[in-house]
Amino acid sequence: MKEFEMIQTYFSGRGPQRKDVIVGVGDDAALMKMPQDKLLVVATDTMVENTHFFTDTSARSIGHRCLAVNLSDFAAMGAEPAWASVAITLPNADEQWVKEFADGLFEIAEYYNVQIVGGDTTQGPLAVTVSLKGFVTEGKALLRSGAKAGDWIYVTGELGESALAVDSKINGLKFPEDIASHIQQRFDYPVARIAAGQVVRHAATSALDISDGLIQDLGHILKASSVSARIDVERLPISHTLYDAVGQEKAISLALTGGEDYEILFTVPEQQKGYLEQNATAMGVKYTCIGQICGGDTGIELLFNDEPFNLKGQKGFQHFSDKEEK
Amino acid sequence: MKEFEMIQTYFSGRGPQRKDVIVGVGDDAALMKMPQDKLLVVATDTMVENTHFFTDTSARSIGHRCLAVNLSDFAAMGAEPAWASVAITLPNADEQWVKEFADGLFEIAEYYNVQIVGGDTTQGPLAVTVSLKGFVTEGKALLRSGAKAGDWIYVTGELGESALAVDSKINGLKFPEDIASHIQQRFDYPVARIAAGQVVRHAATSALDISDGLIQDLGHILKASSVSARIDVERLPISHTLYDAVGQEKAISLALTGGEDYEILFTVPEQQKGYLEQNATAMGVKYTCIGQICGGDTGIELLFNDEPFNLKGQKGFQHFSDKEEK
Repeated sequence: MKEFEMIQTYFSGRGPQRKDVIVGVGDDAALMKMPQDKLLVVATDTMVENTHFFTDTSARSIGHRCLAVNLSDFAAMGAEPAWASVAITLPNADEQWVKEFADGLFEIAEYYNVQIVGGDTTQGPLAVTVSLKGFVTEGKALLRSGAKAGDWIYVTGELGESALAVDSKINGLKFPEDIASHIQQRFDYPVARIAAGQVVRHAATSALDISDGLIQDLGHILKASSVSARIDVERLPISHTLYDAVGQEKAISLALTGGEDYEILFTVPEQQKGYLEQNATAMGVKYTCIGQICGGDTGIELLFNDEPFNLKGQKGFQHFSDKEEK
Repeated sequence: MKEFEMIQTYFSGRGPQRKDVIVGVGDDAALMKMPQDKLLVVATDTMVENTHFFTDTSARSIGHRCLAVNLSDFAAMGAEPAWASVAITLPNADEQWVKEFADGLFEIAEYYNVQIVGGDTTQGPLAVTVSLKGFVTEGKALLRSGAKAGDWIYVTGELGESALAVDSKINGLKFPEDIASHIQQRFDYPVARIAAGQVVRHAATSALDISDGLIQDLGHILKASSVSARIDVERLPISHTLYDAVGQEKAISLALTGGEDYEILFTVPEQQKGYLEQNATAMGVKYTCIGQICGGDTGIELLFNDEPFNLKGQKGFQHFSDKEEK
């Protein structure tokens, strides 16, 4: 079949060829050699057209994002990526699409030294599922469950821009060209904070990556760790671009609730703050303290300059419960 | 969201809870402890509605098959399954569907001691991608590339019944109720030949599972091993049910070219035939010698009682080249 020859052309032998891969693409299953005394780490994410990307999202972006979102899970665990299986479902054998998808995929795979060891190509509505494998030293993985009252809450990078890209697409908002292309880039090519995760895992008590929005994802840490949190809204890392594009109120709303950021949210005890500062450069991205973990199960308290902050015009303290499951 | 609570209800904590799983469902990624001196094995398969199953295929069958087809890859490698990630894309949150899917999935997971360690649930056209992980002793994996001229060609079980189920569905063929329900069962609930794979790996030079039809899949072994093959058509393991349902000619055609069998095709040198016979019981399924590997690159020669066999009315020797890529 044409399709399989095409896949062969664009995928076979491309990207990193790791020494720990004994059998890659082409047999019933792939065989890899695990490093001794490490745990196997596995993350799996599916992307479906019209749910996770738009019909006009470029194939190159889809190739990038399907691996990036899994790398982001690895970053949040402090894990080292190694091998990926890529299952692609395509409505038809569009050679140009496959070529661009493969370009996007292998560009990021190359950067993080991830070998594509297998997968599947099937016919059907456009969707991609990547299962990423790698390793982490036993006892060193960053879980969601270790946050303690008193820990400081940090986040890497800047929040809300990717959500604005989604918002502007859905609601047809128009921005000046430089802003439009900047936020589009943030959505299309999220950066996985692998280097940051490697530093953070020595200092943090808990971590996860922000994919569904700060408030919702922080809720997962609170639930897993049985704690509450205070967020100082004025400290949120929001870019000038975002402020200029939508104003303060909307910018804060996007930073708190917008998804697709793929930044790392993590909690650090007072005595480990110094470690972070000493290793700031190695993180490869800025990080910001945005609040503190508290005891109890009162959810998330939002403050703006120490005053209760109302999100979306609600009055009084804004408490978010953590009923959502990821 | 309702959907996530539902998934939680039907998936959380179900099935085998293996001691080698450090962190299962619920964090950014799963963490597993690998046995020392084993290679990691990974197989990934996607099933899409209207491509791999029908709109009226039961959710329980889909739950079974999505794991079974990956287990079949493991069987063909002589590998031991351990953990699976299950990515489900669903058009809507149909609780009854999810319940039945989970029933089918966990029934087979239980049988093979596979723990579901993660995955993803997304909205979109119905599809399931399973990435199965496990292990095999280094140097003991059965590849496609080891067949040698003179090796005998074997196949487990019986061929063609599952393909008849597909054929009858697509072409609206009617059969007596007992035959109809038997072939439907064969399609809906394929058995992964894990036990057979564990025996075969000590005797065979190559193996794979038959998912696209004997002829096409044998072609993969021939290509990977740079050899040819002779198939003795009269030896093909075809059930009385299949003969009775469609007659000899069609039965042979289905056995040679029909897909979805999930039986193991393997090659054994003369001196290892005895090992197979001694361990026949441990294989848990019958096995049949159907031909022999030959040198050269002349593809597959079909004989019926030593006379050239014409498939689909073609004259003369039937040679199948191995241009197909899986």
